[in-house]
Amino acid sequence: MDKKEMLYEGKAKKIFRTEEQDQVLLYYKDDATAFNGEKKGRISNKGLLNNAISNIFFRLLAENGIPTHFIAELSEKEVLVRKLDIIMVEVVMRNIVAGSLAKRLGLEEGTNLAKPVLEFYYKSDELGDPMINEYHIYAQGLATESELSAIKEMAFQINQIMLDYLEDKGIILVDFKLEFGRGSDGKVCLADEISPDTCRFWDSRSGKKLDKDRFRRDLGDVAGAYQEILQRLQGSEHSAICGQD
Amino acid sequence: MDKKEMLYEGKAKKIFRTEEQDQVLLYYKDDATAFNGEKKGRISNKGLLNNAISNIFFRLLAENGIPTHFIAELSEKEVLVRKLDIIMVEVVMRNIVAGSLAKRLGLEEGTNLAKPVLEFYYKSDELGDPMINEYHIYAQGLATESELSAIKEMAFQINQIMLDYLEDKGIILVDFKLEFGRGSDGKVCLADEISPDTCRFWDSRSGKKLDKDRFRRDLGDVAGAYQEILQRLQGSEHSAICGQD
Repeated sequence: MDKKEMLYEGKAKKIFRTEEQDQVLLYYKDDATAFNGEKKGRISNKGLLNNAISNIFFRLLAENGIPTHFIAELSEKEVLVRKLDIIMVEVVMRNIVAGSLAKRLGLEEGTNLAKPVLEFYYKSDELGDPMINEYHIYAQGLATESELSAIKEMAFQINQIMLDYLEDKGIILVDFKLEFGRGSDGKVCLADEISPDTCRFWDSRSGKKLDKDRFRRDLGDVAGAYQEILQRLQGSEHSAICGQD
Repeated sequence: MDKKEMLYEGKAKKIFRTEEQDQVLLYYKDDATAFNGEKKGRISNKGLLNNAISNIFFRLLAENGIPTHFIAELSEKEVLVRKLDIIMVEVVMRNIVAGSLAKRLGLEEGTNLAKPVLEFYYKSDELGDPMINEYHIYAQGLATESELSAIKEMAFQINQIMLDYLEDKGIILVDFKLEFGRGSDGKVCLADEISPDTCRFWDSRSGKKLDKDRFRRDLGDVAGAYQEILQRLQGSEHSAICGQD
C-alpha cells in the first residue's frame, strides 16, 4: 500500500491518500497538544504506542459487532482505514467524573456516575469545541436523527465492551471521546482513534493516571503511562515492542 | 390573602409564605441583574410590568392546557401561586439564534432555526448556570426521566402557543427560559415567570429589541420596551395602567 499525497494534517495524525479511492492511511505523530492547541509538546513514541493501542481497541470492537474504519495495521505508526465523511461531533462517554465535567457540575474528580453520561461537542477549533446537544446537532445539520440514534447506541455498546475488557487489565475506564463518520454506503461507523490521547485510564489499584492528563497536568512520565497501557493490553508476553522507551 | 414571612429572595422576586400551606406569594422587584449577577440595576416599574405580563402568559397557557403555578393576581406586584418544589433546571427554547447560542455555534444573531432548539441549564449561581444535557440531569438527580419527558413536551407546546399568540401582536418570540416545579401531587407544572426578563422579544417590523437585552447591552429605553410589550399584550384599549412611565 503506497501512501500518496497528504490530504490533511491534524494535531495528532496525518491522513494520506492511497491507491484505493475509499481507503486512507493514518500516520500517528508524536506531537501532543492540549487545551485546544494552547499547550504543545511531544511524547516520545506516542505515535507508535497510540497506533498499536488504538488498533487493539478497534479489533476488539469489530469482533463485538461495532462497525469501524479499521482495515489493517501497515507499520508501527501507520494504519489503513476506510475513507469516511467525518461527522463533526465529538462523542464523549463518561463513567467517572473528571476534567470538564467536574468543573461543569461542581463535582469532585473521581465521583462515580450512577449511569454513564454521554456528551456531544462540536468539532470546531475556532469555537473551542463547545458542548452541544442533539437539537444543536440537528439545527447545524451535523447529523440526522437516525445517524445520531445509531451513534448513541454504538457509544453505549462501546463503553460496555471496553469496560469489560479493561477491568481484566486492571484499568478503570474513566471517560473517552469517540468520532464517527459516514462511509460511501451512507452507514455510520467508528472513526479516529481510541488511545490514552482520547481516553482517561486510571490504574485500578493505585488510581494512577495512565493517559494524556499526565501531559495536560504536567504529572511526568507521560510516555511511560502510554507504554504501560499498551503492555497491559498486550499482556506481559507481548511487552517487547516498546522496550526501548 | 395576608403575606407572612419571606421564604426566599431571588434576583427579581421575593417569595412569601401565606396562610395556605401549598400556596406562596411572589412579589416582583424592580431590580434587574444580568451576567449571573455581575451587572446590576433597576428598571422603573419592572415589577408591576413583569407581574402583569407574566400573568397574561400564564393565563393563556392554562387556557391551552398547560398546568401552571398561577392562582390569582393579588396586586400590581404580587401574584399568588402554588408552592412547588422547583426543579433546578432552566429550560431554554430558541426559535432564532441570539445571545449565548450565537457565540456557542458561531452563528449570526437573527439566524432562523429550522426547528426550535431546546437547551437545559443547571440552576446554580455558584457554577454560573452551566449548560447541561439530559444525562447530566439524571446523573445529578435533578429530574426523573418521566419528569423531563413531561417538561420537554410542555416546552414545545408552550413555544407553539406563545408563537401563535405573539404573531398577532407584532412580536417575534426569539427565545425564552422556563422553570418547572413539582406540586404536592408530584406532578410537574410551569413555575417562575414569563416576561421580558426571561424572553427575547423583537418587534416584527423593525426588529427592535423589546426585552432585557436593552439592559444587558445598554441599549436604552429599557422600561419603555417592557411597557410596549404589556401594551401589545393588553391591546390598545387597556394601555392605561402603565401610563405613568
